[in-house]
Parts: sequence; structure tokens; C-alpha cells
Amino acid sequence: MPKPLDFWFEFASTYSYPAALRIEDMARHHGVQIRWRPFLLGAVFKALGQPVVPFNEFPRKGAYMWRDLERICVAHALPMMRAPEPFPMPSIHAARVAVALEGEACLPDFVRAVYLAEFHQRQNIAEEAVLAHILQSVGIEPEPVFAKAKTDEIKQNLRAETEAAYQAGLFGAPSFVTSDGEIFWGHDRMQDAVLWQKKVNEHG
Amino acid sequence: MPKPLDFWFEFASTYSYPAALRIEDMARHHGVQIRWRPFLLGAVFKALGQPVVPFNEFPRKGAYMWRDLERICVAHALPMMRAPEPFPMPSIHAARVAVALEGEACLPDFVRAVYLAEFHQRQNIAEEAVLAHILQSVGIEPEPVFAKAKTDEIKQNLRAETEAAYQAGLFGAPSFVTSDGEIFWGHDRMQDAVLWQKKVNEHG
Repeated sequence: MPKPLDFWFEFASTYSYPAALRIEDMARHHGVQIRWRPFLLGAVFKALGQPVVPFNEFPRKGAYMWRDLERICVAHALPMMRAPEPFPMPSIHAARVAVALEGEACLPDFVRAVYLAEFHQRQNIAEEAVLAHILQSVGIEPEPVFAKAKTDEIKQNLRAETEAAYQAGLFGAPSFVTSDGEIFWGHDRMQDAVLWQKKVNEHG
Repeated sequence: MPKPLDFWFEFASTYSYPAALRIEDMARHHGVQIRWRPFLLGAVFKALGQPVVPFNEFPRKGAYMWRDLERICVAHALPMMRAPEPFPMPSIHAARVAVALEGEACLPDFVRAVYLAEFHQRQNIAEEAVLAHILQSVGIEPEPVFAKAKTDEIKQNLRAETEAAYQAGLFGAPSFVTSDGEIFWGHDRMQDAVLWQKKVNEHG
């Protein structure tokens, strides 16, 4: 039985945008299943003592990042990224909705639509009206999902996922963890991660 | 007249190792000239207020880096990297020697030999005996180069190069700057940088 590759993403994370938009096609091409795992990177940063907003703290690095992302969008023919306002965008509501959709076939569509709304259309994904529109755009009735996302169970599930990300050894997003525990960090390593999981599945 | 791609490297920088070992073959393949530019990254970090030893400051990131570099060495059939002791290694003496060799055909050989000694053979490149052995291994008489490297002119040239790196917008190493001012940061972006310079040379 082939095992899935864990794709850990954070909605505030810029390099998670190209990863989220590209991973499913790439994984399908290589016959690898993806497990979509939202988590809260800020909590992991705090636990590790890492700068919480590195791209704001170091302006030169931040300016480079946006230029680098422009080049990535051009190279992979992705809708162009632009800095949202505010940046980083509060991501906890979108993350809770993603957790509420766990196991449902529409989850990847929702995740991609959030990233496009945030970094291409520059919408505020912290607003419920924006999230409602995103859900509708991928064919999901918003109200029942919002109701579920506000339960203690879902809040606790997101905390547990964030703790699982920490325990898995993560320190950034996007990250990819293979079924044999190999960690790959960043959109740059996505293909390596997919190929690693493919090899694990083929050779055991 | 085709213009060269600037390859900015720092001898203490780990990801400069695969870049230094691979760039000449890659550039030759694409008909691009490389200008080898040593600088002192620590001074740039200080000027920018960035963490001076990020991979020691954040142990989880550091452990990941060494694993990532192992995978890069395997992928590109490079001599395996191992953490030197101390890490980071004081790099100013090697950098002054590199500046003293500027414009000479042996400079790339010297740079590669330093990286191999430091990260593969785990030698202390801060020691003059080690640098002498490295110079001899690439066919250079050490004494005249050491004498030149200790002059005020060479010391001042290295400071000027480091200031030029800062003025060029750099914030890390390795970095690649094309003749039209496009910055690429990291070994991951080396091929993009070479192809960008190729395009500039072809289309003006």
C-alpha cells in the first residue's frame, strides 16, 4: 500500500503559495498521494525562538523574497503574487476551516483558492465574508463549515496538528515529510520530496 | 561583448561549497563567463542586523542544513560535506589570499581547493600551513601570495569588495548578480542566474 507524502502548509506563508498550486499535478505525475496538513507556523517559530516575521524584520531579505516569488510565478506560469495588506495575513480562521474540511475531496480546491485570494487577489482571508466567497467558489456551502470550524473540537485539532508539526521537526513552511521521516523544507525542495516518497513506495 | 556573471562567495558559507564546485562547468555549458568575487559575509550581516550565525543560533535549522547538504552532495556527486570544527570557520585569511589571486587563472582552482579542505577534509583554513598546502596543491608558490595577502592594499581591496557586495544589495552567500543587476541568492538559484546572464548576453 503506497504511503502519502505529508504537505505541511501555513496560509500566511508566501512560498506555500507556489507549493500549494503545483503539488497536486506534480504528485499525480509521479503517482504519489498527498496528505494536506494545515498548521500554525507562528506557534512553531515561537517555540523555537526563531524570528516570527523574518521577511519584515529584515527588509532587504523581504524585498528579495517578493522578486524571487515573481520569478517563480513566471517560471511556472502561476497567477502573479503581490504582497497582501496586512502582511503577514492572520491565518488562523482559514486554517480552522481547512481542518474542518479534512478528509473531504474539496480540501485541496479550498486551499488553492485561499492562496489565490490572499496573494493574487490581495483579499483579507481573515474576514469571514472573504472565506465564505472562497468556499462558495469551490462549491462548498459556507455556513455548516463555519459552524464546525468554530467548535472546540476543530480548534483542538488545529492545535494538535501544530504540535505534530513541531514534533515532526519542522521549523518553516512549506515543509514536506516523507513516510520514512525525511524532511524537505521549501518550495525549492518539493520535487525532491515527491521523488523521495515515490522511491519509498517503490522500494519499501 | 558578453558580460560576466558575478559569483559572490564567502569561505565560511556552507551553500557556497556546492556552488563553487559546480559553477564553472555549468557556466561553460551555457557559454557564460564567471567573475569570482570573495567577500566577508559577517560584515554584511552586521550592517543589516541579521543573525550572524543563523545555523548555530537555531539548532533545528542547522541540523536540517547539514542533512540538506548531504542530499545535495549525493545528487550532484560532490565529495561529501561534513561540519568543520570550529563552525563557522574564520575565513578572512583565505579571503585575503583569494583577493591576492584576483585576475589570475588559478583563482577558481584555489577557491575549490579551500572549500574541499574546509568542508570535506575538515581542515582549519584559518591556519597558514593549511592554506600553504592548498596553494601548493593547485600549483601556486605560497610565500609570495602570503606576502601580498598581508599588504594594506589587499586588506583594503577585500574591505572594498565587501562594501561592493553590500551596495549591490546582497544579504547572504552564495549570491549571483547578473550584469543587468538581477540578484539570485543561494545555490538553489545558481542555474537560474546563469541562464539569466546567458539571455542578457544574447538579447542585450
